[in-house]
Amino acid sequence: MSGKSAHTSGRPVQPRGWPPSGLRTDLYELTMMCGYLREGIADRKVVFDLFIRSIPENGGYCVAAGLADVIAYVTSVRFTDDEIAYLRSLNTFTDEFLEALRSFRFTGDLYSVPEGTLVFPVEPILRIHAPLLQAQFLESVLLNTINYQTLIATKAARICGEAGEDNVVEFGMRRAHGVDGALSAARAAYVGGVESTSNTEAGYLLGIPVRGTQAHSWVMAFADELTAFRAYADAYPDRCVLLVDTYDTLRSGVPNAIRVGHELASRGKRLRGIRLDSGDLAYLSIKAREMLDAAGLEDARIVASGDLDEWIIHDLKIQGARIDIWGVGTRLATSFSEPSLTGVYKLAAIEDDGRWSPRLKVADRGIKSTLPGVKQVWRLKGNKGWLEGDLIAQEEEQISPAGPALVGFHPLVEYEKKVYDDVVDATPLLEPFIQDGRIARELPSLQDSRRRTREQLAQLHPTSRRLLNPHIYKVSISERTLNLRRKLREEVAPPVAE
Amino acid sequence: MSGKSAHTSGRPVQPRGWPPSGLRTDLYELTMMCGYLREGIADRKVVFDLFIRSIPENGGYCVAAGLADVIAYVTSVRFTDDEIAYLRSLNTFTDEFLEALRSFRFTGDLYSVPEGTLVFPVEPILRIHAPLLQAQFLESVLLNTINYQTLIATKAARICGEAGEDNVVEFGMRRAHGVDGALSAARAAYVGGVESTSNTEAGYLLGIPVRGTQAHSWVMAFADELTAFRAYADAYPDRCVLLVDTYDTLRSGVPNAIRVGHELASRGKRLRGIRLDSGDLAYLSIKAREMLDAAGLEDARIVASGDLDEWIIHDLKIQGARIDIWGVGTRLATSFSEPSLTGVYKLAAIEDDGRWSPRLKVADRGIKSTLPGVKQVWRLKGNKGWLEGDLIAQEEEQISPAGPALVGFHPLVEYEKKVYDDVVDATPLLEPFIQDGRIARELPSLQDSRRRTREQLAQLHPTSRRLLNPHIYKVSISERTLNLRRKLREEVAPPVAE
Repeated sequence: MSGKSAHTSGRPVQPRGWPPSGLRTDLYELTMMCGYLREGIADRKVVFDLFIRSIPENGGYCVAAGLADVIAYVTSVRFTDDEIAYLRSLNTFTDEFLEALRSFRFTGDLYSVPEGTLVFPVEPILRIHAPLLQAQFLESVLLNTINYQTLIATKAARICGEAGEDNVVEFGMRRAHGVDGALSAARAAYVGGVESTSNTEAGYLLGIPVRGTQAHSWVMAFADELTAFRAYADAYPDRCVLLVDTYDTLRSGVPNAIRVGHELASRGKRLRGIRLDSGDLAYLSIKAREMLDAAGLEDARIVASGDLDEWIIHDLKIQGARIDIWGVGTRLATSFSEPSLTGVYKLAAIEDDGRWSPRLKVADRGIKSTLPGVKQVWRLKGNKGWLEGDLIAQEEEQISPAGPALVGFHPLVEYEKKVYDDVVDATPLLEPFIQDGRIARELPSLQDSRRRTREQLAQLHPTSRRLLNPHIYKVSISERTLNLRRKLREEVAPPVAE
Repeated sequence: MSGKSAHTSGRPVQPRGWPPSGLRTDLYELTMMCGYLREGIADRKVVFDLFIRSIPENGGYCVAAGLADVIAYVTSVRFTDDEIAYLRSLNTFTDEFLEALRSFRFTGDLYSVPEGTLVFPVEPILRIHAPLLQAQFLESVLLNTINYQTLIATKAARICGEAGEDNVVEFGMRRAHGVDGALSAARAAYVGGVESTSNTEAGYLLGIPVRGTQAHSWVMAFADELTAFRAYADAYPDRCVLLVDTYDTLRSGVPNAIRVGHELASRGKRLRGIRLDSGDLAYLSIKAREMLDAAGLEDARIVASGDLDEWIIHDLKIQGARIDIWGVGTRLATSFSEPSLTGVYKLAAIEDDGRWSPRLKVADRGIKSTLPGVKQVWRLKGNKGWLEGDLIAQEEEQISPAGPALVGFHPLVEYEKKVYDDVVDATPLLEPFIQDGRIARELPSLQDSRRRTREQLAQLHPTSRRLLNPHIYKVSISERTLNLRRKLREEVAPPVAE
């Protein structure tokens, strides 16, 4: 095992392919942009909200991640001549539009929750204020980045929550979706709480501690297991963790590891641990622990890996498994049980004669409706220190725990009214990170984001953190937002054609 | 909608971050490599096999993809001075090893099935012959790339199989795992059979046809839906597809689209189609079809999108949905129902005094065992033109349909013997793509790979193509391989320590 204690970097994953290509987007963003320009509305100021519709696996919370990559993209994306020539070859776009892309720069504002913030459905977690053409353009990459990194940070937080005080190592590179997917996964998993990663590039680029010992191929490359273990102990006497399941875990692997452990001890070194990668991890870890203890190797740790996730860790803990370190790969890096997040990016307001005109998307299902207007999210803390809920309000509203009790309404079930009567603190979550196209504040380091996750989770009531049927954290909308939506819903009642 | 008929490129996804970083790997590959060097076995020739353990969603087949990216990586990967300095900072590696990385180049051979080949569990789909140090190094990226692209090509083939003659468009960028994940997904989905993608970068870099019209935000940016539709038709009179579910699909969206369709017709143009993105797609498409037909817009196509996958398409077809084009996003680009492939990379043989010494990993579960020796996979075709099965044999075996009937054994259930008595053709699947570190043959174009998928699927019996409980395609091992495994299993019987 190897680590790195250097300062982990808050900078984004991406030194590659820089500046990012303007073609990294869904084609319809470009056809819409060209259409807006043609209609003379490309420069109208708009507000778009990015929000999630639901929490993966019916969980109790999400952990926001991906902002650093988003900011790097938004402030750097460009169109090259070759890319514009490609667009011209599609015979779809006007010359005026293609010419405008040459000097494309984002000149608007970006508000967001900082990475590591707990976020919940319906509430905006990122907000863009920009000319319509620019704001539309950002949709695909913003969603791609925030959806994936938030998904993985959330999964990591769930897994680390079940591992308790044990360390979790991210092992998912071989099953992540592409090499850059693997890097983003390592980054987001770190924000979500893992202690380290097997991904060396994530160590190099982001300063995340890296870990790794040996695979079965090491053991198979030698004449026998004992020879392989001895060779590893010779090579790494100070960081010797042995993989014991190549041939037979309890009859061969653990006894051979113990023998090497004694040999290390005779040289003043110690066996750091063993790794179990298959079989019944509850049974094997208990037996291996007994064998190690009986051999005087009480301080050798047991690392487990192999299709682990939060549910399995939860269950292994209940069974009394003696596992000290959890290597979690596939099911973390792909968020296996639910591999996508439902983030969407919707128009909330458009400037009309110098004033904001709020916009609403109605839909067959209420959950697919949007919340109109320029909005802020207020996080409410109660007098016992727990988070009480979030209140989505129009930006001009002042939300304060002083004065009359705060009132909110269920975002969908409008007659459900919530009175927050013991709120002692209300904090706005959306902060400006880009203003007039320029980075407006230094990004937190990755460690800061990881710390934020941990601190916020500690304030979330345990009933909202449990895996199965968690208590639903209350997100409400302000009365003003409710009334605005009602008014708009009537206005957009369909003017049937013909 | 926009397309591109240019020749799609067989080149890999990656012009970015080039040459690829040597740190793009799991740390344990590097600790093992350093250990091999220390033990004096780094230069021993070895053979590693890459194979899958099972098929996602209990499906009947997989479609191999990712080879182009693998070849580009293998022939280009390098370690920079900065990267080596980072490794030095971990205090884990010897100077000799770090020095060796400076001149790291792959000098071995790579055999693989071509992209678009149908592949099945247990059989090697890629084989590396190289010095141990090099072969070990490749593991992480090979698995990452082949696992993901094969997963998505397979999912695309399943989806296109259910869509039948209808076109499928890949729409998954906003939910794919990172921006490069989105690009790989578009590439692999094209190999698997989709007609086009919404990912503009995939069009530019790989020549895949691109498609895209407008989002809800277009409709919401105008005073009302009809105005929005008219503006779009004005901007794109030759490619006008209208999204009809922003407010009310049947009472507003479709009537307004029909009105614009008539207006287009009066200008000598035509409405290309409408897009349904929410609600009951069976009901809505049937009703919309009736309305369009009644209005004389029989040639307007209906595009559907919104959480589609092969199961839903299958079901919508049974219900008589009138959908002509399928936009498939999240569930394709993430392979939602099963978001990882079980590819592994295992040592099969190591050179010992100038001869191959086959290697075996035993395991608690038979499926986690490996097949020893240097192996070829033979695809057997029967006299009716169907694929009869695959036979995994030692490389020195000559498999020919002439002569005595071919015999194979079940890879796990060794007493299950299979006699292939009507085989008329036996083709070896693994071909050399890299020899002595140099590219040995030109890669097929993406179209060629896509064509290969289609051709092979046409030869796979329909019972093996169905979604639910498909007939299991028979993969056998040769008697020589069986006997070799038996012999090795006895040899590696655990020499219990102490």
